[in-house]
Amino acid sequence: MKKIEHIGIAVKDLETSNILFASLFGKPHYKVEEVASEGVKTSFFKSGPNKIELLQATNPESPIAKFIGKKGEGIHHIAFAVANIKAEMERLTKEGFVVLNKEPKIGADNKLVAFLHPKSTNGVLIELCQERD
Amino acid sequence: MKKIEHIGIAVKDLETSNILFASLFGKPHYKVEEVASEGVKTSFFKSGPNKIELLQATNPESPIAKFIGKKGEGIHHIAFAVANIKAEMERLTKEGFVVLNKEPKIGADNKLVAFLHPKSTNGVLIELCQERD
Repeated sequence: MKKIEHIGIAVKDLETSNILFASLFGKPHYKVEEVASEGVKTSFFKSGPNKIELLQATNPESPIAKFIGKKGEGIHHIAFAVANIKAEMERLTKEGFVVLNKEPKIGADNKLVAFLHPKSTNGVLIELCQERD
Repeated sequence: MKKIEHIGIAVKDLETSNILFASLFGKPHYKVEEVASEGVKTSFFKSGPNKIELLQATNPESPIAKFIGKKGEGIHHIAFAVANIKAEMERLTKEGFVVLNKEPKIGADNKLVAFLHPKSTNGVLIELCQERD
């Protein structure tokens, strides 16, 4: 775990929230990206060495739609940058964490990603992410 | 807003969670601190340029006890480092955010802190924090 790569925030409407977070940070988002496989549209803000990722569902089956249905808008996950995602998945499985993916999958922002089940991490959904070559 | 200073995570039992997060990060917490005025006991982990702060309530009136009662364990707040907390509080009030404190107060880890109401920030409790002299 090298650092917090980003914090993911579930929002109902990306355009409205882009304006809100631009006011907060004093600068606009620097990119928008759709991840069709996850049913999300995302936007990214920089905060020093970290990023904030806003996530809007693009269909009702999206994990973000389900999250907002249960808990409302708010922090969805913390993503940690790792050097070797497969090695971290193995290490954390041995430590007793529940890794939700058998293999890393392709996420937003040119990353390989995997998630840890919040039941094994004090209620926090944790994403591991490794920069793709 | 210079960077994410820390992410605060509400936990029921600090000792149990210290072990869990030490497994996650592959290294133990580096300090424990009680903030009597907030009714919390905290521990800190480093993650590159950022910190993770675990928060356990020390009495039933603590904001952390109330948070866990409503939502269970999990991410409680994001803290952003700012150079001048009073100037940021003024700027954000003008931008329409609801600043919960009239004056900065003394928080954990030798910081001056103030909070933004989650209703004005997409459901995210945001802390501003400035290093004390």
